[in-house]
Amino acid sequence: MDVGFIGLGHMGSGMARSLMRAGHSLRVWNRSPEPAKRLEAEGARRAADPAEVFQAEAVFTMLADDHAVRDAILDSGALERARPGAIHIMSSSISVAFSQELEAAHAKAGVAYVAAPVLGRPDVAAAGELNVLVAGAPEPVERVQPLLEAIGKQVWPIGAAPHQAHLAKLAINFSLAAAIETLAEAFALVRAYGLDAKIVKDVMVGTLFAAPAYRTYGDLIVGQNFEPALFKLPLGFKDVRLALEAGEAAHAPLPFASVMRDNFLDAIAHGDAEKDWSAVSMVAARRAGL
Amino acid sequence: MDVGFIGLGHMGSGMARSLMRAGHSLRVWNRSPEPAKRLEAEGARRAADPAEVFQAEAVFTMLADDHAVRDAILDSGALERARPGAIHIMSSSISVAFSQELEAAHAKAGVAYVAAPVLGRPDVAAAGELNVLVAGAPEPVERVQPLLEAIGKQVWPIGAAPHQAHLAKLAINFSLAAAIETLAEAFALVRAYGLDAKIVKDVMVGTLFAAPAYRTYGDLIVGQNFEPALFKLPLGFKDVRLALEAGEAAHAPLPFASVMRDNFLDAIAHGDAEKDWSAVSMVAARRAGL
Amino acid sequence: MDVGFIGLGHMGSGMARSLMRAGHSLRVWNRSPEPAKRLEAEGARRAADPAEVFQAEAVFTMLADDHAVRDAILDSGALERARPGAIHIMSSSISVAFSQELEAAHAKAGVAYVAAPVLGRPDVAAAGELNVLVAGAPEPVERVQPLLEAIGKQVWPIGAAPHQAHLAKLAINFSLAAAIETLAEAFALVRAYGLDAKIVKDVMVGTLFAAPAYRTYGDLIVGQNFEPALFKLPLGFKDVRLALEAGEAAHAPLPFASVMRDNFLDAIAHGDAEKDWSAVSMVAARRAGL
Amino acid sequence: MDVGFIGLGHMGSGMARSLMRAGHSLRVWNRSPEPAKRLEAEGARRAADPAEVFQAEAVFTMLADDHAVRDAILDSGALERARPGAIHIMSSSISVAFSQELEAAHAKAGVAYVAAPVLGRPDVAAAGELNVLVAGAPEPVERVQPLLEAIGKQVWPIGAAPHQAHLAKLAINFSLAAAIETLAEAFALVRAYGLDAKIVKDVMVGTLFAAPAYRTYGDLIVGQNFEPALFKLPLGFKDVRLALEAGEAAHAPLPFASVMRDNFLDAIAHGDAEKDWSAVSMVAARRAGL
Repeated sequence: MDVGFIGLGHMGSGMARSLMRAGHSLRVWNRSPEPAKRLEAEGARRAADPAEVFQAEAVFTMLADDHAVRDAILDSGALERARPGAIHIMSSSISVAFSQELEAAHAKAGVAYVAAPVLGRPDVAAAGELNVLVAGAPEPVERVQPLLEAIGKQVWPIGAAPHQAHLAKLAINFSLAAAIETLAEAFALVRAYGLDAKIVKDVMVGTLFAAPAYRTYGDLIVGQNFEPALFKLPLGFKDVRLALEAGEAAHAPLPFASVMRDNFLDAIAHGDAEKDWSAVSMVAARRAGL
Repeated sequence: MDVGFIGLGHMGSGMARSLMRAGHSLRVWNRSPEPAKRLEAEGARRAADPAEVFQAEAVFTMLADDHAVRDAILDSGALERARPGAIHIMSSSISVAFSQELEAAHAKAGVAYVAAPVLGRPDVAAAGELNVLVAGAPEPVERVQPLLEAIGKQVWPIGAAPHQAHLAKLAINFSLAAAIETLAEAFALVRAYGLDAKIVKDVMVGTLFAAPAYRTYGDLIVGQNFEPALFKLPLGFKDVRLALEAGEAAHAPLPFASVMRDNFLDAIAHGDAEKDWSAVSMVAARRAGL
Repeated sequence: MDVGFIGLGHMGSGMARSLMRAGHSLRVWNRSPEPAKRLEAEGARRAADPAEVFQAEAVFTMLADDHAVRDAILDSGALERARPGAIHIMSSSISVAFSQELEAAHAKAGVAYVAAPVLGRPDVAAAGELNVLVAGAPEPVERVQPLLEAIGKQVWPIGAAPHQAHLAKLAINFSLAAAIETLAEAFALVRAYGLDAKIVKDVMVGTLFAAPAYRTYGDLIVGQNFEPALFKLPLGFKDVRLALEAGEAAHAPLPFASVMRDNFLDAIAHGDAEKDWSAVSMVAARRAGL
Repeated sequence: MDVGFIGLGHMGSGMARSLMRAGHSLRVWNRSPEPAKRLEAEGARRAADPAEVFQAEAVFTMLADDHAVRDAILDSGALERARPGAIHIMSSSISVAFSQELEAAHAKAGVAYVAAPVLGRPDVAAAGELNVLVAGAPEPVERVQPLLEAIGKQVWPIGAAPHQAHLAKLAINFSLAAAIETLAEAFALVRAYGLDAKIVKDVMVGTLFAAPAYRTYGDLIVGQNFEPALFKLPLGFKDVRLALEAGEAAHAPLPFASVMRDNFLDAIAHGDAEKDWSAVSMVAARRAGL
């Protein structure tokens, strides 16, 4: 298929390569040109601007946040000038409110809008092993299914309204942040008695918590191994804040997210903005005088 | 080995049977006589009081809380009159402070004190498949190792001070409660947008949260399936409170536990004390107007 | 002085009348024309649009929120077309971030910017008895001092940067919300034991808490007297949210504000958006099963 | 009247002197003898033990906590050997649960039980200017009214059950702690923007918060003036914990108290246990990186 890709950071480049490996022809654009040049060298066609990318049959967007998406898709006029019948696949983790705004904007522009946020880090994206949460109208979702299967090991249907996939992604990232805070408090508690947190972590991940979330973050927190960051702390904070905002719009109190919000601010105020988001665990330890 | 067992509730009876299956001779006692009579019919020797049980080489205690342990072991005089060289294995989930008090009381009475709290519900106990957290002096721990292996599929060494195993157990149960609250908030959030929580739960347990804790409680919460209780809400509250108390003694703030404390009270105030502790998830839903 | 006034709600109309009583000539504008017509009948000059109001020497703005201010002042082009040397007095309670943005916009437009948010309800505004928090460059602040004295019984100098007055206002409204939540929890606690909250309220306002904040809200909460609203619940929520946002930008965790945020959402989810903001106290009572 | 007094710390000695000034004859006891000797030198009769004090017509108890009261009154046998018809006036701030236990113990011993916790610090006690919260059966309350008037400038009737006065005292001390935390967060917020907290404090205590609680603690927090302690931090923490425990027994969630609990622990973990309880305000500042 003639596929476009906007946003070629670590995640986006990996996803784009997976699409090329699956035999799709790619036109790509990125704000800074280098990543696009690298993909051009691998066979992609480099577009002059987002509007040119939107002449493809299906266009992925994998950008940092609402603001970057608004710039590239709406303010650039790209969406309005899209190829008739194009399908836009939004893999960026954006706010629920903005995803709802995009539903209206796509309807107006006559472009099909499919949400396909992903779970996984850059190495997983590079391997084409992401978990893809997909939501949108049945027909366009069915048409892009082969593309989603090219980037992911599993595609999870979420619902018919695109914002539902972004909502689900936020709920999952909120849960991941909560797992980090849980480990942070559990470990601060046992360390306050002189017990090695690794011992408790090993029991947890060997029994009830034998899951990637606890294995990955349990090791990072026990080892105080926060640099280089796999996922920077302010990005984790952003997702917690988006969960809070989504809750606010729907009148859902999220007291765990409120606690985490305060802890992320505490971490940033203590100079940890360049570290992995699991460095928020240092707040619980510091508050206990450890 | 000549083994004693005090406390024959659902958990204790299962553990006692595992010990008999492994060929140990058992003397048992329970406040209400029926469970002891049932084990007597299966070959155990029914003791008249805790002190008689303490004439065994090794004695398990599996009682509900600090208070029940204090009654049976300290106030009854059983510990003082124990057989010389006896080893006391405390499998009850007790407070860290009380476990520390018991360390002193055992030293004074000349009885070895091994902490061996367990992870698992009654059906797991009946199958001898518990996870056992063990802490205590090396020599008695080594001597009772065969007993612990009889009741558990895995024995996890925690430390040389018995209270460390009780602390680790509390940290894990706190984490379990936090997983329940996390799911409760995540599901309230998505339900507030009309999205079926089951869809998000399936993604979670199929990806980052592929662990027993999330599978078990994810299903219960999605299905609102809180009766009959597997673990009653006030017992879960007790463990959160014990974690808070342990944190208090060591000056470790636990803001997630504080949120959960308030939510457990909210649940009890709304009449849910007879339900499974995962019914605390109804608080997040109710607060969101669901 | 030739004074302009934009925003003639209950607060703004009272302030405008105070200015006229003090002998100033007024030109006024309001989105809906009726309040402007009423003031016209009392001697004010009704302007066709905000830009016309900005031909005055000094212009007050008293609008609901950031959005309304942006519409009336920036998007309308009024600020750009202001009379040379005009002073803009912002009495609206706006966000700190927007006040900082306005500092830059005024500098660019060559209009002096004075922040003068007020404490007090419509009846206090009508009586010219407001407390006025003023911040801005010394020269324009000195020039508008007589205007501020016309609307207020006391003018409190806050600082040289206008956003500092808006920040101070948010800190005070946060404190007011916290006093409401404090009373809500204290009263829920005593009521849970069958003690009449009025008895405790009387001791409080007769001793350590003998202040308007506790007298006013103590009576409202004890009497469950939330309608008609003196200050609607979503407006109170807005101020708590603005405090949280201001804290976020400066990395200051505000755990009390986080608790209140969740409680305001709980209140709105339970249908109390039309009530006085002190109705958030019903959350603590409801959670206690009262 | 023949009055007894047990517990002659800073508060108790001041109260005892007020009683002597009012013409009552006093018999006194204190665990450490010096304070009793000082009062003996001023005309009081020094008793050998609490039981001897309980031969008076009315006996005040002003001790640190539940434990000290239990030691002096119950475990000593003093209550059982009290003079027939004696009235016991409990001015100590004790837990609601213990006050309820004392109701039963006094009924059994045939001693009238009046709760009379006080508001005010040692200098206020010395001046006989305390606020006294009184609860108990009408007849004994009426009989001791002159004594209460001797120690206080105002006597506030709370209810017929003694524990209600202790409950009210806890609700008020909880509110005081919440005022401290409110100021701490409000000041951290404005300081994070470089605004002097004193400016905001002055507006607050000059307007809506013109009350002793805010004046006293506003000054202490702005001045970071925490030593010598007027009321030590662990005592303030104790009262917050007692409020939480009272809430727990009645199923009343108190999220503000939960936040404060965590902050008091944070303060103690940072070495501030010898400071005034308003030093808990340093937690909000520290967490904001100030």
